[in-house]
Amino acid sequence: MHRKFTTLKTRPAADGFYMPAEFAPHQRCWMLWPERADIWRDRALPAQQAFALLATAIARFEPVTIGVNARQLAFARAALLPHIQVVAMGSNDAWLRDTGPTFLLNKAGQRRGVDWRFNAWGGIYSDHRRDDAVAAQVLAAERSARYRAPMINEGGALHVDGEGTLLVTEQCLLNRNRNPQLSKVQIEALLRDYLGVQKIIWLGQGVVNDETDGHIDNLACFAGPGEVCLTWCDSRRDPQYRVSHDAFERLSDARDAKGRRLKIHKLPSPGPLYMSASEAAGIVHYRGTRRVRAGHRLAGSYVNFYLANGAVIAPLLDQRSDAAALRILRRVFPRRQVVGVPAREILLGGGNIHCVTQQVPAVRRTARPQRR
Amino acid sequence: MHRKFTTLKTRPAADGFYMPAEFAPHQRCWMLWPERADIWRDRALPAQQAFALLATAIARFEPVTIGVNARQLAFARAALLPHIQVVAMGSNDAWLRDTGPTFLLNKAGQRRGVDWRFNAWGGIYSDHRRDDAVAAQVLAAERSARYRAPMINEGGALHVDGEGTLLVTEQCLLNRNRNPQLSKVQIEALLRDYLGVQKIIWLGQGVVNDETDGHIDNLACFAGPGEVCLTWCDSRRDPQYRVSHDAFERLSDARDAKGRRLKIHKLPSPGPLYMSASEAAGIVHYRGTRRVRAGHRLAGSYVNFYLANGAVIAPLLDQRSDAAALRILRRVFPRRQVVGVPAREILLGGGNIHCVTQQVPAVRRTARPQRR
Repeated sequence: MHRKFTTLKTRPAADGFYMPAEFAPHQRCWMLWPERADIWRDRALPAQQAFALLATAIARFEPVTIGVNARQLAFARAALLPHIQVVAMGSNDAWLRDTGPTFLLNKAGQRRGVDWRFNAWGGIYSDHRRDDAVAAQVLAAERSARYRAPMINEGGALHVDGEGTLLVTEQCLLNRNRNPQLSKVQIEALLRDYLGVQKIIWLGQGVVNDETDGHIDNLACFAGPGEVCLTWCDSRRDPQYRVSHDAFERLSDARDAKGRRLKIHKLPSPGPLYMSASEAAGIVHYRGTRRVRAGHRLAGSYVNFYLANGAVIAPLLDQRSDAAALRILRRVFPRRQVVGVPAREILLGGGNIHCVTQQVPAVRRTARPQRR
Repeated sequence: MHRKFTTLKTRPAADGFYMPAEFAPHQRCWMLWPERADIWRDRALPAQQAFALLATAIARFEPVTIGVNARQLAFARAALLPHIQVVAMGSNDAWLRDTGPTFLLNKAGQRRGVDWRFNAWGGIYSDHRRDDAVAAQVLAAERSARYRAPMINEGGALHVDGEGTLLVTEQCLLNRNRNPQLSKVQIEALLRDYLGVQKIIWLGQGVVNDETDGHIDNLACFAGPGEVCLTWCDSRRDPQYRVSHDAFERLSDARDAKGRRLKIHKLPSPGPLYMSASEAAGIVHYRGTRRVRAGHRLAGSYVNFYLANGAVIAPLLDQRSDAAALRILRRVFPRRQVVGVPAREILLGGGNIHCVTQQVPAVRRTARPQRR
């Protein structure tokens, strides 16, 4: 246990590291504990309930660790079932997908991680220093060496197939509120270097009204090598129609890093869903954070699920469409258990199940354990 | 499996049946699924989250079955983890402690149950026909013979030590909105006959503002033979002070059915807690139901826990007092795991963890299984 967890000066691809797919085996899942009264209504109590339920659902399939700010530590420990691990960790909010590290493996099965710079999606809240320090803490806890990437980025902006292909959106990765000093060519080069991918598939816009500026993880994801799930919309009057159809065309035209065409599974959009007056009434407004009002369209999407070991942990968002979404997910993932978790309280905060989770890929046992 | 589950015309005590204590072994726990928009805010979604989390917590210690109205069946099935059993069952609301049966055992370990008449605590909602039919359905599902008791009563109004002692409150059992045609002597006789108890300890008022008219299960309960937990209040200006001190005096003076004095464990009252404006805003008001307004004092109590096999499932209600309450419970129940569950959403509906659960006592294996 005398290894050092330094920050490496090299780049992952050159070191033989790449980001494995979410559908590959995990060692554990990380989350954070929500508490901000200006993001989560009613002093975050309903959201904490939702996170506790989500953690419990995931923990049926893989270990779960939750990072909690010091002042909430005792309460979170009490509110989470005993088999959920609770650790002290400072953060500004609970979106670990975006503030946590992007874990990498090499062919020997060793693990490292990328710590992206974080600016709260272009500034949804002004003080994001503790969030920017989350990834390094998770990497230290996991004893994984750290690459500090020289660009603003978030885990929710990336989906990979683990076989060389990366899926991103132009709306997010090329947004002027992220890395205005970098050209598309420079951004592509950094993504290749830090994720170990060879092929980048660019979609256009993300889900309508997504506060992350169109994170890919709310629009589309890999269901397996050569297979993607896509948020779908059949209603021409809905602005999501144009977004989903454009993404469908781009995905249909694309080839992945192995030269394969992609099989596209359509997942219907819920709703449209809106924040109700009573929900908005419970959110406190402070200076320096965006004000959310009643009637605000929520960027709900069934694509924002989490793949745990042997399971799909899927958001329940709308009783009219939940059953159809779960049915499709069962067809797309016949060897996984599809588990629904009520997720409206998470959605009210601006994201969903995928946004608040981050998998730690399983480290392969070394091929020659007895040598030495 | 050709036994008949008829309604018996006899009375339990005469048949050798008695109500076992909650701290005795359980076979399973029953709950119902909340959905009323006039009781549970925001179309009951936050409450459903809370119930799902509670069910999951209990299911770590004993099997859980949840009864769900037909129109919510698909959603509840999706929203509850797969190991929670879901069955179709009509009800008007989700207070199974009060609408479910009171299970009885005899000395041979056989099980039967009491189905009390139910009038929604004197009429909190006017149509309670489906609630009144819940107990019979649960008894049929458990293949337990049924006694239909000739009085209005609720499970939350009763706590027993399983050794002949019953704890009740005058405010509830003698309330004119329950059984005005019965004298106290007649009520005592019915309680003896239907619960198989010999000694009834009468407390006075229940927790301040308790909509059930002072159910015992929010004020005090048995922690073991000769031991009770009592909601406590040290603030003279709080009306709960008088209630708790009167109960303490009565409990101090009492002897149980075995002639023992009671050891009294004080659990501090949370808060006081009030319904916030944003919470009240999410509750729809219909004719025929009580209107709940912002500022309404909530009858929160840490005594309203559920004893599962090997565990205490305790409500988390107030971050200033939760830790102290859990600490006391760990001392009172050194051989049980004390698990906190965020319960404010349940409290907003008018009750708590004990109110929404009902244990099925474990049936002892017959001493002579091979006979016949």
